[in-house]
Amino acid sequence: MIGVVAKLKIQDGKQAEFEQAGKDLMAKVKANEPGCLTYQLYKEKGSDTDYIFMEQYASQDDLKAHGQTDYFKAAGPKLGACLAGAPNVQYFDIVE
Amino acid sequence: MIGVVAKLKIQDGKQAEFEQAGKDLMAKVKANEPGCLTYQLYKEKGSDTDYIFMEQYASQDDLKAHGQTDYFKAAGPKLGACLAGAPNVQYFDIVE
Repeated sequence: MIGVVAKLKIQDGKQAEFEQAGKDLMAKVKANEPGCLTYQLYKEKGSDTDYIFMEQYASQDDLKAHGQTDYFKAAGPKLGACLAGAPNVQYFDIVE
Repeated sequence: MIGVVAKLKIQDGKQAEFEQAGKDLMAKVKANEPGCLTYQLYKEKGSDTDYIFMEQYASQDDLKAHGQTDYFKAAGPKLGACLAGAPNVQYFDIVE
């Protein structure tokens, strides 16, 4: 299993636009990717502009497939237009 | 829903001891906490000493209850003995 934590800082005022794009993306992932076990947008407590996508995939291939979907590629510019800086994406291997 | 990402840097050489304590804790959480929806230890890709616990709770009360369990309190010194520095724990509110 592969874990991903993608940290995203958003421009103040763009929260609603960003959250809607995130919710649209989550719905598509949930509907289409059985190998994506968790794909959840969260907002950091105490912050107005810091978010993460918390993600778990059954395998490296499932993570790769996620990145190649049309809807993920289409979401990039929508989410990117709301960012205040470069995303910080970290990848993890399960300990079990 | 509440998300938690707890980042832990481990002393080199203590990985096996740390992972065993983490696995013991995960088993107890899974067996006893229906309100804890995710409780998974991960090791950062490309790092020998960086780990996270990726956690999701149904509610703030479930998170609070987790911290009050005897086994969580007992795990603290075992995990802590392996750390190379202070843990960095971030808390998140779900976007849905």
